[in-house]
Amino acid sequence: MSFDALFYPKAVVVIGSQSAGKLGNVLLKQIIKGRYEGNLYAVNPKGQGYENVPGFQSVESIGKKVDLAIIAAPAATIPGVLDDCGKGGVGAAVVITSGFSEMGNHEGEKQVLEAARRNGIRIVGPNCAGIVYTSHKLYPTLEIHPPEGGVALISQSGALGGVVLAWAEEQGLGMSKFVSYGNGIDLNQVELLRYLKDDPETSVIALYIESIKDGREFMEALQDAASAKPVVVIKAGRTNVGQRATASHTGSMAGSDNVYEAAFKQSGAVRVNTIEEMIDLCTTFIACKSMDGDRVVIVTNSGGPGVLAADRGEEVGMDMAEVSPEMIDTLKTFLPPFCGFKNPVDLTVEGTEEGYRKTLVTLLEAYDAAIAMNICPPYLDASSHAKGVADAFDIMGKPVLANFLPNQVVADSVKYLKERGIPNFPSGERAIETLARLSDYHKRKRIIKEHGGFSEVWQKLQSKIAGQTSKLPGGERILEPEAMGWLRDLGIPVPEFRFANDEAQAIDDCESIGFPCVMKVVSPQIIHKSEFGGVIVGIKNRDEAAKAFQTIRKRAEGKDFRGVVIYPQIKGAQEVLLGLSVDPQFGPVVVFGLGGIYTELFKDISIRVAPVNHHQAMEMIRETKSVKLLQGFRGAAASDLDMLADTIVRFSEIPFLYPEIKEADLNPIFVLPDRLMVGDVRIIK
Amino acid sequence: MSFDALFYPKAVVVIGSQSAGKLGNVLLKQIIKGRYEGNLYAVNPKGQGYENVPGFQSVESIGKKVDLAIIAAPAATIPGVLDDCGKGGVGAAVVITSGFSEMGNHEGEKQVLEAARRNGIRIVGPNCAGIVYTSHKLYPTLEIHPPEGGVALISQSGALGGVVLAWAEEQGLGMSKFVSYGNGIDLNQVELLRYLKDDPETSVIALYIESIKDGREFMEALQDAASAKPVVVIKAGRTNVGQRATASHTGSMAGSDNVYEAAFKQSGAVRVNTIEEMIDLCTTFIACKSMDGDRVVIVTNSGGPGVLAADRGEEVGMDMAEVSPEMIDTLKTFLPPFCGFKNPVDLTVEGTEEGYRKTLVTLLEAYDAAIAMNICPPYLDASSHAKGVADAFDIMGKPVLANFLPNQVVADSVKYLKERGIPNFPSGERAIETLARLSDYHKRKRIIKEHGGFSEVWQKLQSKIAGQTSKLPGGERILEPEAMGWLRDLGIPVPEFRFANDEAQAIDDCESIGFPCVMKVVSPQIIHKSEFGGVIVGIKNRDEAAKAFQTIRKRAEGKDFRGVVIYPQIKGAQEVLLGLSVDPQFGPVVVFGLGGIYTELFKDISIRVAPVNHHQAMEMIRETKSVKLLQGFRGAAASDLDMLADTIVRFSEIPFLYPEIKEADLNPIFVLPDRLMVGDVRIIK
Repeated sequence: MSFDALFYPKAVVVIGSQSAGKLGNVLLKQIIKGRYEGNLYAVNPKGQGYENVPGFQSVESIGKKVDLAIIAAPAATIPGVLDDCGKGGVGAAVVITSGFSEMGNHEGEKQVLEAARRNGIRIVGPNCAGIVYTSHKLYPTLEIHPPEGGVALISQSGALGGVVLAWAEEQGLGMSKFVSYGNGIDLNQVELLRYLKDDPETSVIALYIESIKDGREFMEALQDAASAKPVVVIKAGRTNVGQRATASHTGSMAGSDNVYEAAFKQSGAVRVNTIEEMIDLCTTFIACKSMDGDRVVIVTNSGGPGVLAADRGEEVGMDMAEVSPEMIDTLKTFLPPFCGFKNPVDLTVEGTEEGYRKTLVTLLEAYDAAIAMNICPPYLDASSHAKGVADAFDIMGKPVLANFLPNQVVADSVKYLKERGIPNFPSGERAIETLARLSDYHKRKRIIKEHGGFSEVWQKLQSKIAGQTSKLPGGERILEPEAMGWLRDLGIPVPEFRFANDEAQAIDDCESIGFPCVMKVVSPQIIHKSEFGGVIVGIKNRDEAAKAFQTIRKRAEGKDFRGVVIYPQIKGAQEVLLGLSVDPQFGPVVVFGLGGIYTELFKDISIRVAPVNHHQAMEMIRETKSVKLLQGFRGAAASDLDMLADTIVRFSEIPFLYPEIKEADLNPIFVLPDRLMVGDVRIIK
Repeated sequence: MSFDALFYPKAVVVIGSQSAGKLGNVLLKQIIKGRYEGNLYAVNPKGQGYENVPGFQSVESIGKKVDLAIIAAPAATIPGVLDDCGKGGVGAAVVITSGFSEMGNHEGEKQVLEAARRNGIRIVGPNCAGIVYTSHKLYPTLEIHPPEGGVALISQSGALGGVVLAWAEEQGLGMSKFVSYGNGIDLNQVELLRYLKDDPETSVIALYIESIKDGREFMEALQDAASAKPVVVIKAGRTNVGQRATASHTGSMAGSDNVYEAAFKQSGAVRVNTIEEMIDLCTTFIACKSMDGDRVVIVTNSGGPGVLAADRGEEVGMDMAEVSPEMIDTLKTFLPPFCGFKNPVDLTVEGTEEGYRKTLVTLLEAYDAAIAMNICPPYLDASSHAKGVADAFDIMGKPVLANFLPNQVVADSVKYLKERGIPNFPSGERAIETLARLSDYHKRKRIIKEHGGFSEVWQKLQSKIAGQTSKLPGGERILEPEAMGWLRDLGIPVPEFRFANDEAQAIDDCESIGFPCVMKVVSPQIIHKSEFGGVIVGIKNRDEAAKAFQTIRKRAEGKDFRGVVIYPQIKGAQEVLLGLSVDPQFGPVVVFGLGGIYTELFKDISIRVAPVNHHQAMEMIRETKSVKLLQGFRGAAASDLDMLADTIVRFSEIPFLYPEIKEADLNPIFVLPDRLMVGDVRIIK
């Protein structure tokens, strides 16, 4: 559909009382204050206007085409209002009014949506704080008017959006559009992302969400947008307390934060946790077009603050490599000998314009970005230093962020730096944290371009399956030998095994598998086989095999005993696990971790929205700390991680081939230097 | 000594050129601008004065008593300047001049110190940014003049101090004193802490350090000060400075920043990492006298920002418990039904003065502190809400921090809140992070009061030892049987063991220890016994004992083979480790961790400056994640942690009883439900 009525309205009507203090009047005043240049009308039962804006009793009675309605009428009247809008040719409506699903009024919300549908009107809201389009001078919002610029903000929460706008105004961060979509009954983050991706006025998208509906549709829209321009996301409810609070706030469940984290990573969006971080990062994305690596150098005129920034740089994963001896030689040709030549490079309080310029130009040959710090004593003037920094930024075209302090002393320099495109931060730490996120966005963008992100993997699998799904083997419960056979057919390595339902067969099977071997009970009634005593390991000969079978059969008395499954005993393997579960927002997710109690103790797992490709599976393996155990820790033989990644890929596709699956675990998977095999499998339909 | 000359000077001389732009003149102008009320003189070779301040060619020639000299004369002249000061009766000097040890000029620095000593003058500096005493209106500093108040700042770095002062001025945080001690050749953080502890003008101490000399003296001074008033510390160089190069396993993980972290904890100081955090926390310490627990409630008028703050609260360890049903019933008697009644409590945009007041008063009955958030749309006025918040703070006397936003809209409210003693933060996240540190300080203070901190344990051990130390047993290397016997004598549990140097004895010893048992080689030339093949486990009978002895003796051919040591084989034990090493700043430190590769993989260790008492040892055990394995994880039997703590206490005292020890490891220690014993010991003299 075309969004012209919503985003390029030539005529706007504000629907709601124009009495002083009423929301309708506040909104109209905001629009007038913003100097909107299209046609503007007021509609309310009294037909009251305000200043030069004419009032009518209905949209229909205006008699001219109206594109956009801003609605602040009482909740119960809104379906009727939309019918009137339909008659007036309105194409889109922003419903500010609250009192819908956020308060339990789902029926009222349904009626609003129905009215919108039957009148062909797209809805933003209800329960929202309005919209802002700075380039059209259109400000039908309850919030502060931000300056014009390249950042578009989409916010589920109106108040949160308002805070961002206020901060943006204070810090001179220009905005293109603001859309507070509130309950999001029609337009929500997905369509807005799709629109903003191609919006020429928007070069950075900022997104605040508390909950989403269709996780996969969201991820596709997000990846699409993030491939075109940076997307900075705050997702509230990242802890249990936050999720509880979100549920009470919007009435929607926030969902597992780990899954959201994975979704952002797979889509190439950058996640931040606070508004401060969002503003810092948007400012930097506007200023710095790219960053091609992690190597950061700090150039300072003061040791202490430089060290604090370097500490933080190391903590956030930047490569704070020392300056090379050759480069130090170059620096020494123009810097005094008492300067510090490592990283941070300390020009000392005697740093000069030329010192900053030449030092930064020299270092940016070898580094991917720089932080320029200047702690200016009140008796000095930082403005020439600012010029040196800005010149170096122009010459080298790589990211340079500034930390000029203190504010009272360097106000002019900061303004100057800003004019020349260099953001200033209140501390070196904040600057380098932001740089780390900048680097991360570009790194992920490169990875997705080269290896694919969520969308490519998901679309490829869908076209491969083409709606053809299968039934799982077995009855209500899948027995272990059935499950193992099924995994083997799917290309997931399982050990050789035998199924035996009498003692003689079991003894022969043990011998043919080879001693020592393992025997496990098979019964649909016995799930936790080890706890039940249904697993016997270390069977060394035919006698022990006979005894093992008898023991298991005896223990299983009174249960539906189907027999035993026999495996060779695996020695010296590293144990890992794979899990699948179905997230309410995102559908199937895949989990990788080390086997055993340490996974639980240290929560050392990685998670992705399924399916994943080989590169993503390798990422999953590598982002756990325990990957070292697979890489030949302390002289042990290294495992074949490619083979493990292949298994993760296949496993991640299973829930789409077999939609009955609700949960599945391969735990343990035995990983040996040259092969791997599933040790146990559990499937819940 | 008395610090009167330094801290209460009745007459001050500035020594250094009074030509325009020279440091001496900048300093004098700063003092004049500050309206210092004592006598003021200038001394320089020309005898030049400035404005009303008379100039002399020497301090001696002033002819009146001068207490304090501010010295900006060239480095090489300073010993002579100090001799002149001595003649003029000067008691203390602040040496601003740089060009000493920070540039390799150690000889010059030594001469300054010698001159100071022979003239009985205490020195602040050299290479410092001066001092500030707001209540005396004395500002001989290069930095911005902060307002008067209760925070004293001690900073090793002048520039860093300057930044803090500038921020303090901007945010209206009042300072009592600022001392930049630079190279600290005489007065440093230790004496300054001792002085400020009893300074009636100072209620909070802020400290920035990069390095210290005597760690134990520092910790004692720090604990002493922190028991009297909050001490907030920034220690720079936390990622890569001062890392010791030691091959020792536990030593290498106990990088020196960990030791600082432990030292702050043991002394009751609060560590922060950034200047922003320091300012936030000092502001809060001034406003809130105490905090008696971790339960925090958020009262907001806006869902989104409330959720973000709640998320952060949970992450920083605050107890964001839900509001009890009884309390919700109370809230419902005066709040509208559409409010959110969990935690955060959401008054919605319709929140009122009375709503804030009554809600906070009600909740602070059950919570230890509150965050009051108010996100004010531009068409509303937050000032009545601010009044409600401030009233509740007055009534309840518990910490209340505010997050009123946006600045442009709530400026008057924020000013009002400040006047009534409530700090406002730029985000709810920043507010709750600060609250977490406030809570942490008071919690630690209570613990140290009840169970003792570093000083008590250290002093008690010193008086117990009273200088009586012992020699370690053995020669250059301590053999395992000697070490085990020695540990047993020290009260550290070791398993039963036998030492045998011939085969027959070894076989008998194995039998008397009981099968299965373990046999280990004893040789001063074999350190890594396992790697050498010198450890044989699972010896089941006399035959195997004979074979084991033969194998070990054969492998040890060509080495200085002394025999074997025999232990019972321990089964089902959890393995932990203890390590001792000597830190260059702090001396002996003790490390506790889980045994095995997971300790290294997850760096799950705890560290303390030795010695520790029982309570501190329990803290060490409990702060590791793997403590769960000792507490009966997944149905396993729980271990006796008290017994383990006793062992840590004894072990932590060893380096003081035996000063030869450079490093020691007990690794593994077998921990069983009812007992524990050392499995192996390694001592480096």
